[in-house]
Amino acid sequence: MMPTSNDSLGIVETKQVTLFDAGNPLTLVCGDQLNEVVIAYETYGTLNADASNAIYICHALTGDAHAAGWHEGDKHPGWWDTMIGPGKAIDTNRWFVISSNLLGGCQGSTGPGSINPATGKPWGLDFPLLDMSDFVTVHRALIARLGVRRLHAVVGGSMGGMQALQWSLSYPGDLDNSVIIAASSRLTAQNIAFSAVGREAIIRDENFQGGRFAENGANPDVGLSIARMMAHITYTSEEGFQSKFGRKPQFDESEPGFGVDFAVEGYLEHQGETFLTRFDALSYLYLTRVMDYFDPFAARSALDAVRADPVRYLVMSFDTDWRFSTAHSQQIVRQLAAAELPVTFRDIRSPWGHDSFLLKIDPYLATVKAFLEAHTDYEGTAWGRA
Amino acid sequence: MMPTSNDSLGIVETKQVTLFDAGNPLTLVCGDQLNEVVIAYETYGTLNADASNAIYICHALTGDAHAAGWHEGDKHPGWWDTMIGPGKAIDTNRWFVISSNLLGGCQGSTGPGSINPATGKPWGLDFPLLDMSDFVTVHRALIARLGVRRLHAVVGGSMGGMQALQWSLSYPGDLDNSVIIAASSRLTAQNIAFSAVGREAIIRDENFQGGRFAENGANPDVGLSIARMMAHITYTSEEGFQSKFGRKPQFDESEPGFGVDFAVEGYLEHQGETFLTRFDALSYLYLTRVMDYFDPFAARSALDAVRADPVRYLVMSFDTDWRFSTAHSQQIVRQLAAAELPVTFRDIRSPWGHDSFLLKIDPYLATVKAFLEAHTDYEGTAWGRA
Repeated sequence: MMPTSNDSLGIVETKQVTLFDAGNPLTLVCGDQLNEVVIAYETYGTLNADASNAIYICHALTGDAHAAGWHEGDKHPGWWDTMIGPGKAIDTNRWFVISSNLLGGCQGSTGPGSINPATGKPWGLDFPLLDMSDFVTVHRALIARLGVRRLHAVVGGSMGGMQALQWSLSYPGDLDNSVIIAASSRLTAQNIAFSAVGREAIIRDENFQGGRFAENGANPDVGLSIARMMAHITYTSEEGFQSKFGRKPQFDESEPGFGVDFAVEGYLEHQGETFLTRFDALSYLYLTRVMDYFDPFAARSALDAVRADPVRYLVMSFDTDWRFSTAHSQQIVRQLAAAELPVTFRDIRSPWGHDSFLLKIDPYLATVKAFLEAHTDYEGTAWGRA
Repeated sequence: MMPTSNDSLGIVETKQVTLFDAGNPLTLVCGDQLNEVVIAYETYGTLNADASNAIYICHALTGDAHAAGWHEGDKHPGWWDTMIGPGKAIDTNRWFVISSNLLGGCQGSTGPGSINPATGKPWGLDFPLLDMSDFVTVHRALIARLGVRRLHAVVGGSMGGMQALQWSLSYPGDLDNSVIIAASSRLTAQNIAFSAVGREAIIRDENFQGGRFAENGANPDVGLSIARMMAHITYTSEEGFQSKFGRKPQFDESEPGFGVDFAVEGYLEHQGETFLTRFDALSYLYLTRVMDYFDPFAARSALDAVRADPVRYLVMSFDTDWRFSTAHSQQIVRQLAAAELPVTFRDIRSPWGHDSFLLKIDPYLATVKAFLEAHTDYEGTAWGRA
């Protein structure tokens, strides 16, 4: 339950805001327009007088706006409560933190499970395909609404790091610092393969019904939980699984069979089950596909804007991450360094694989904290000098 | 199509033999008995006069008796035709090769898809659970039937290597040499996790029907193909996938969507589809579970028999195999070496991951060949001196 310690944000709330409407539609990279875009978001800390202390948090594939603090009744705090709070790496005594749920998501933001205003029914697969740049467009609309013109930093792990990268390349004038953790600028065939099998499990679930399942009242739960279980294996290192479970049986005395014989099986089954309570199969399809296509350095001109208006970068990886291994981060570093941008790289020792970015790993959190606090004298953020 | 080169076995046939019946039932490790066990097998080459030149091939999870040569109408030869044939590593001019389909399998041997004599209906999940030692019991019955009392070698890759290991520990008097390739003596939590998710996809397929799908005429094809696609990712190295597919699109001009956009997706889908034509969902459950429980060195007395009657071992791994990594093979080597058994270990450089054991990789094949031909002067196999 909620601790009462002085590094907790205590109770926080998710808000919703309509950022685009028929009079101001959102034009997507694919060319389609959305006439209604509602975004769920949370904020922590206080925006200072010159609005120079804002940090934007971008979430990973299955994250949401609730990054830190506690909702009434929460059993666990927000997904990045290890990172964000009073005195923590992203210190809410100092920074005004904005965290939003992605367009295409299913936790309060407009997505394929939302009602299509044109038909009065859920969008389903009629929802337009999204691009990492579309997320940035929506994030920009939110900061404008909140009265922030320039961010001290954009910070994200995994797909969140991809947004932090894309934002810096597309609109370097929006941010001073970009923190890209356990991310990739270009998925490998194996990365795509894992996502593809997860999507296949969802689409081929008998309840998927071409994406119209919400109208039929039965969700593709089997497919979605299989996708989650498989993905979860890739989020954990072999070493992490081994030290946590090894070959431990689920129960002391159980007949061998095809159920949950080993503890690792029980753990995965639990992961698959609980995922169903918080995630939508269509969002899973849309958001994984955005990652598959993400390839921001492909265009020759990709680095032109940021070269003209440099952003400072912190790129981090974890040594047992095999979802987006250290080599993925090094590839990002090479591209940025070749453009002579100020980039710091740190590979962190951790046994827990990709999900390390969510964990309390002191050298990792200390590195983020130091980076964010070192560069407070940069253009327009003089506020932070202490 | 079938080559006419002089290293091809040409046309071969699968035979079936009843090895156990009501008068001579098979007693399994779990305590149950099977009153009818039919096994499919092939042989290549000629058994010599003193029956001293036989080599037994054990197949991996989804293999079958058809290891080499061509069946009428085959588009591809047997699954280990790179290894077995005239002049090849397992030289059929020299050795009499026996290859059988596993008990519990679905390619001509008795398994959960067979008719239960007691009910007249397919066994389904009433088929008893199997153990690696049960496979060895059946293999032994087959060699006895073929008039072979001692094998020059038992050779297998992946789960085939596990059988070669188990046989050597349980009945070292049966074999002179054991060749254990890309195997494991103890699956990790991650290994089990991948198998568990595949089984879950099968069991939760709407058509699985508690294992009685054969009676309903609709197979759990979705679950089985998802299981295969996922497993196939683990059989290939990240490097192998990347060099073969990278981010190549499936078609030159295609609209992005949730279908087969990338070539790696098309490849996996094809793997999933073709698997359905040759494999049964119940066999997949039974055989993967045998691997999960395999732990032959767990018993204190595990090495007593072979220490008293030493077998020569060749243990091999592939450096990019992450299904059963080099560390798994090293673990086997450590156990055997600690018992002062003659064990040779070789880690082969190959970009293709676990499935390397099926491929034409010259240093690998040459090592197997040299090992098999070096030890022909060992106890009872004096025939081989040339």
